[in-house]
Amino acid sequence: MARGSAKRNAFYAQSGGVTAVINVTAAAVIETARAHKDKIGKVYAGRDGIIGALTEDLIDTSRESARAIAGLKTTPGGAFGSCRYKLKGVEENRAQYERLIEVFHAHDIGYFFYNGGGDSADTCLKVSQLSEAMGYPLLAVHLPKTVDNDLAVTDCCPGFGSVAKYVATSMREAAYDVASMARTSTRVFVFEVMGRHAGWITAAVGLAADEDNDLPLVLLFPEVAFDEAKFLTRVESLIRSHGYCCVGVSEGLRTAEGKFLSESGLRDAFGHAQLGGAGELIAKLVRQKLGQKYHWALADYLQRSARHLASQTDYDHALAVGKAGVEMAVAGKGGVMPAILRTSDKPYRWKIGSVPLTEVANREKMLPTGYISADGMGITAAARAYLLPLVRGEAYPPYRDGLPRYQRLKNPPVAKKIGTTFKV
Amino acid sequence: MARGSAKRNAFYAQSGGVTAVINVTAAAVIETARAHKDKIGKVYAGRDGIIGALTEDLIDTSRESARAIAGLKTTPGGAFGSCRYKLKGVEENRAQYERLIEVFHAHDIGYFFYNGGGDSADTCLKVSQLSEAMGYPLLAVHLPKTVDNDLAVTDCCPGFGSVAKYVATSMREAAYDVASMARTSTRVFVFEVMGRHAGWITAAVGLAADEDNDLPLVLLFPEVAFDEAKFLTRVESLIRSHGYCCVGVSEGLRTAEGKFLSESGLRDAFGHAQLGGAGELIAKLVRQKLGQKYHWALADYLQRSARHLASQTDYDHALAVGKAGVEMAVAGKGGVMPAILRTSDKPYRWKIGSVPLTEVANREKMLPTGYISADGMGITAAARAYLLPLVRGEAYPPYRDGLPRYQRLKNPPVAKKIGTTFKV
Repeated sequence: MARGSAKRNAFYAQSGGVTAVINVTAAAVIETARAHKDKIGKVYAGRDGIIGALTEDLIDTSRESARAIAGLKTTPGGAFGSCRYKLKGVEENRAQYERLIEVFHAHDIGYFFYNGGGDSADTCLKVSQLSEAMGYPLLAVHLPKTVDNDLAVTDCCPGFGSVAKYVATSMREAAYDVASMARTSTRVFVFEVMGRHAGWITAAVGLAADEDNDLPLVLLFPEVAFDEAKFLTRVESLIRSHGYCCVGVSEGLRTAEGKFLSESGLRDAFGHAQLGGAGELIAKLVRQKLGQKYHWALADYLQRSARHLASQTDYDHALAVGKAGVEMAVAGKGGVMPAILRTSDKPYRWKIGSVPLTEVANREKMLPTGYISADGMGITAAARAYLLPLVRGEAYPPYRDGLPRYQRLKNPPVAKKIGTTFKV
Repeated sequence: MARGSAKRNAFYAQSGGVTAVINVTAAAVIETARAHKDKIGKVYAGRDGIIGALTEDLIDTSRESARAIAGLKTTPGGAFGSCRYKLKGVEENRAQYERLIEVFHAHDIGYFFYNGGGDSADTCLKVSQLSEAMGYPLLAVHLPKTVDNDLAVTDCCPGFGSVAKYVATSMREAAYDVASMARTSTRVFVFEVMGRHAGWITAAVGLAADEDNDLPLVLLFPEVAFDEAKFLTRVESLIRSHGYCCVGVSEGLRTAEGKFLSESGLRDAFGHAQLGGAGELIAKLVRQKLGQKYHWALADYLQRSARHLASQTDYDHALAVGKAGVEMAVAGKGGVMPAILRTSDKPYRWKIGSVPLTEVANREKMLPTGYISADGMGITAAARAYLLPLVRGEAYPPYRDGLPRYQRLKNPPVAKKIGTTFKV
């Protein structure tokens, strides 16, 4: 290891659920690092996220061509693998953090880029603090990514805009379908979307309707306790006025008692309840109580991997945070996150700002109350003004033989330098 | 009514489940009719399909601008409304057919264009035969449309190619997502697709994998009795080799006893069992028997309304059958359907042929045995050669503010000329 030399290697890892544009950020990190050869040697990626660092399973991205790296910009999923693996608190498990530093030390890693959501921002902050406490020079930068759009300070999170575009487009399309069928067949269409605790994606479904598209939409937010009677009354009223009704429902819809409408009983690796079933339950309720024929859809992973319908704004954001993150690190800044700061709604203008991780870690940005309409089942003009710029523009991938052409990397391993293994 | 005059009106109706491109056919009918003003007066559309004819609820399409009609070509759903309403046999309910002729007579309709699947082809044939028996001059032409792709004679059905493109793209995208997550989270992804009795759409899911995309896919066709042990063994094997597994399952998957894996108990207006739940059941089975974490998606209406991802080939077919149908009628041909006839796989070449409805009605074209791989869980090279041309090309709709701009019509009614009502 050339501690103190001007040129050190970088480590990049993807964390948590992947998105349609997380690889855009990855490509930006690698391309920007390659443009700073005076400061950054190689970019190593963690195979399957931070687990790759803990197990010294690193990928040498320097062996990928510029063309392959550029190909990541139109490829969904996480090119190096991601993981749902939350590092414990430093007090509880100092060994994890010390192992990270050991691996970084062995591979002369001076830059740590962690691409994820709220949990990752917290991990990134801890790694930054611990490396400092241990006297190991490391510039740790968190790169925002989450379809949940719930990171603090940043105006939005890369990944969300494309999901928003997908769910709004899908609901609009389904509504045109249901409208055609309502006379003799389906009258209620239910669409379950992601968003564990915050209703950002549910709100985006609301964009399906606008002044040119008078669609009878009902939105069921995780922030608004489900009121069965009120909901059914609204559905009936919309069927009367429009002949049909479309319902966008969050997977995290809760009862007045605060319980999820449906709980599978399973918990994911972060300890969050694994949800699902809210859409189906709502659909069946409509049949049972109103006697209406329903159809329902569950987009699940399709919504967050729909690179074919990615938003250009989202793409631009994902590229910008990757580039800015590397530039911050090269300029000697650590413990920060490049944030997207909106300077104007109309025309939409934004810039990248540098935010200390202490202001981001362990904070959740909820959907503002002012974005939900007074009746609790729709979105306001303020929500629309916020959301619309994020879905703007079509960043289409290339196609071959009628299907999107996605990039796969060789992902060659970096030779191990530490003799010991580490159990994760 | 100007019986015997050279110029008579046309009636157009959409039938059954709508598609991403049925309005392309509608636009082609109207535009082609407008180009034959010597033979065709106005084009009246049935509001909500054939029900509009029975109830004398006609839409005057002549009052829509050329621009609005052209806008239909990029709009999913059925612009005039469709219905699931099967006319009974002539013997059982002659009154329905006589009512149709009565309405056609009152509005001087000499051309009947019925845009639908197998049931509609049968209705179209009966209307053609009965009008002849009754001495009423009517040229009845069936225009093919069904995402199920199960019409006889025609090489494929408009609507199917776009669904095929959507399900293959979606599965490919989801596979890239799952591959990223498999180390610590989801290892099995299940995607339920449409196709009541024939596995055309299930086969299309198979296009997600190819020589550039080594994806661990399992397909569960409605034609192949579900073999639990064999399926689970395959899933386990793919998880071993690839780390994860993706399953495309037909809503119509059946047990060895011929029962649907899941029956909701409801039946639609055609008397078919309303299905759903096969995907969820398969996903839960994987968890229960293999202990693997799953995610599952149900595209439902999203797959057939996904105009944002329509296939250019499908679009071209939908346009061609509308145009050819009108030209056949204008040339004096009735009781026929314009069929898509493939003349070459590679390069893909096709032409439109005229087929007597007697060869189409009441026949279902099943997925050829040779399209399903020997193990019953994949597709063959022959299937690929058939399917690939159908998904080729991207017929993108226009966007405004980041969302597809879809056309809504005014749909003004035609003044009624008959005093009586008709109960449907």
